Amino acid sequence: MHDFCPRAARNLAAVRQHQPLIHNITNLVVMNVTANALLAAGASPVMAHSPDEVEEMVALARALVLNIGTLTSEWVATMIKAARKANALERPVVLDPVGAGATGLRTRAARQILEAAAVTVIRGNASEIMALDQGTATTRGVDSVHGVNDAAASAARLAQRLGVVVAVTGATDLVTDGAREVRVANGHPLMGRITGSGCTATALIAAFLAVDPDPLSAAATALAFFGLAGEQAGAAAAAPGSFQVALLDALYTLGPEALQEESRFA
Amino acid sequence: MHDFCPRAARNLAAVRQHQPLIHNITNLVVMNVTANALLAAGASPVMAHSPDEVEEMVALARALVLNIGTLTSEWVATMIKAARKANALERPVVLDPVGAGATGLRTRAARQILEAAAVTVIRGNASEIMALDQGTATTRGVDSVHGVNDAAASAARLAQRLGVVVAVTGATDLVTDGAREVRVANGHPLMGRITGSGCTATALIAAFLAVDPDPLSAAATALAFFGLAGEQAGAAAAAPGSFQVALLDALYTLGPEALQEESRFA
Amino acid sequence: MHDFCPRAARNLAAVRQHQPLIHNITNLVVMNVTANALLAAGASPVMAHSPDEVEEMVALARALVLNIGTLTSEWVATMIKAARKANALERPVVLDPVGAGATGLRTRAARQILEAAAVTVIRGNASEIMALDQGTATTRGVDSVHGVNDAAASAARLAQRLGVVVAVTGATDLVTDGAREVRVANGHPLMGRITGSGCTATALIAAFLAVDPDPLSAAATALAFFGLAGEQAGAAAAAPGSFQVALLDALYTLGPEALQEESRFA
Repeated sequence: MHDFCPRAARNLAAVRQHQPLIHNITNLVVMNVTANALLAAGASPVMAHSPDEVEEMVALARALVLNIGTLTSEWVATMIKAARKANALERPVVLDPVGAGATGLRTRAARQILEAAAVTVIRGNASEIMALDQGTATTRGVDSVHGVNDAAASAARLAQRLGVVVAVTGATDLVTDGAREVRVANGHPLMGRITGSGCTATALIAAFLAVDPDPLSAAATALAFFGLAGEQAGAAAAAPGSFQVALLDALYTLGPEALQEESRFA
Repeated sequence: MHDFCPRAARNLAAVRQHQPLIHNITNLVVMNVTANALLAAGASPVMAHSPDEVEEMVALARALVLNIGTLTSEWVATMIKAARKANALERPVVLDPVGAGATGLRTRAARQILEAAAVTVIRGNASEIMALDQGTATTRGVDSVHGVNDAAASAARLAQRLGVVVAVTGATDLVTDGAREVRVANGHPLMGRITGSGCTATALIAAFLAVDPDPLSAAATALAFFGLAGEQAGAAAAAPGSFQVALLDALYTLGPEALQEESRFA
Repeated sequence: MHDFCPRAARNLAAVRQHQPLIHNITNLVVMNVTANALLAAGASPVMAHSPDEVEEMVALARALVLNIGTLTSEWVATMIKAARKANALERPVVLDPVGAGATGLRTRAARQILEAAAVTVIRGNASEIMALDQGTATTRGVDSVHGVNDAAASAARLAQRLGVVVAVTGATDLVTDGAREVRVANGHPLMGRITGSGCTATALIAAFLAVDPDPLSAAATALAFFGLAGEQAGAAAAAPGSFQVALLDALYTLGPEALQEESRFA
């Protein structure tokens, strides 16, 4: 059994016990799904994106999510403001560079955030991570055109250069801090047929960061939790509508013991 | 049987018959859920937040919902514009002060709206209502840290001071106009594990206000309706994903007779 | 068998094969539902509304959706910018004039877009299409107060005047290019009890336009596909919550053969 298996169980139990408040500045497509996923998992979500309140809200929260999925320029400034406050308070920050590589705005916005504030974890698909590393357009919309392995070198470089943990999600997920690399084999193909899967993964990483001081293990165990919930949902449903419902159910019913036994790290 | 039991039945039947148009200026997390809940219940929802059209839209609608869940300063001005038009046309207005107490922006916004226009019903959780009354931060994000009883005095004071009905929702709901107080015991714990429960309650109060001239009975009977739908959903589902689906189903299938028999007022 | 029956099958198979990227500038209520419906059907959705990126995103996409459901003035300018780029690149554009006729802003916005750029298909309910043609307020909120037949003359006039295909959806849908008219009889009453049905129809038309060069057949076959999915969902579910889930499932499981056999054109 991998070291992270008992850690996954402990993290999930801790999220359910402490119900950490997670502050999300996220995209308009997934706000509802993200809030519901965090609630089902046991965390407490809040969405707030006004420049007039993000600093106060970050101060109440245990972790901050920045997701650039439906970006405007104004939101970038607000995200940076929130991230800097989180830095000052030593709260973890997760960045989801949705669609980086697809448009200049998104690639620039993600890089601008990374320059202006310290991020704890970056979670993206292979194309997004490669775009952040290489600065060139490699995605098509918001879906990856690369496999996770294609992005391994980019992930490691980004992690080293920025001193962050990088999580690349796909059929098998890859999590690296530039020195250590962990693979997470949990998951189900239908997760790619519902919108906001990646965004939910990002939010769950934030919830696990709120209870685990090691960003590598927080990210990897959150992805195992989400992937295993996906497996359980896939066993209960064969199409995206009912899969989505079963996935939310699984985030609520999946217990620490099952997670410890069925997490697949490598 | 409480007087409100037949009233609940009449109100539900009237919503289904007249399908009142409900104008919602609400938060980005719950727009979809709110629209679906109103449609399932028999009302007709419309979402419109442009300052260039809210007055026209209010004029078409039978009630107005103001929900500050994902607030920006611009939206506050638009909400006030819409509320004043509703006042001029004598249409009921419901305010949902989501997260009042959590940040200064939200507490100020809620108070600013209450000063600038007449509101018919305020619906919040205990912490939000206490924050509106006391002006101090007592919430954690958007989830209440207080029970409904903690907020009873604040609710009564607010109701008297502002001449509004205040509905505090929680395990048992409390509705007061400052003189009369009604408790509504319908509900299910899973309602707290899906996002937007409170916002849906607020929207349903608006639908009932559209057909019932007494704001106290409109609010209380709407909460009984929503709570009973939650009970039926809880009997059909044991986790939040399927609960959410069953709740929408129950808002559609629950009939006036069942509501009359199973509403629990005190 | 109508000519469009095999065409419907070919179009659906082509969407699943090519997974065309569909760029949506759509309303805040339905963003999630639209993305999920496109994914379930086999297309690849992206939502992007920043004026700083819409031109780049359109260039990546195979079709553009403009939906004015929760409009502000800024968004109108962005929609026009995106539509002009789509015109330059010869990508199809679908306009959904949500609530045209209900407020001046919406009627003006829809007309302004139609003047400023070439649109391929307009998809609306009867009231919206009549409002676009006649320029007077005939709707109540965003739900139609007219039947499809009431809008037949308006649809034909609009189609001729603007050189577009007009699709009027309702109990039976009507699609016209001003010369030819097709009726689509597929559908289910519960589609009117969930929010965003019309918006989903619009997005699916965009997906079919991405694979079919004839806008009349693209629109009609997309509506048959959506209507038949609704029929299958209605056979599986009797209330809006479970219907919504079953509808997404059906968009995923419904195959070209069944579509060819059960499409009902006239």
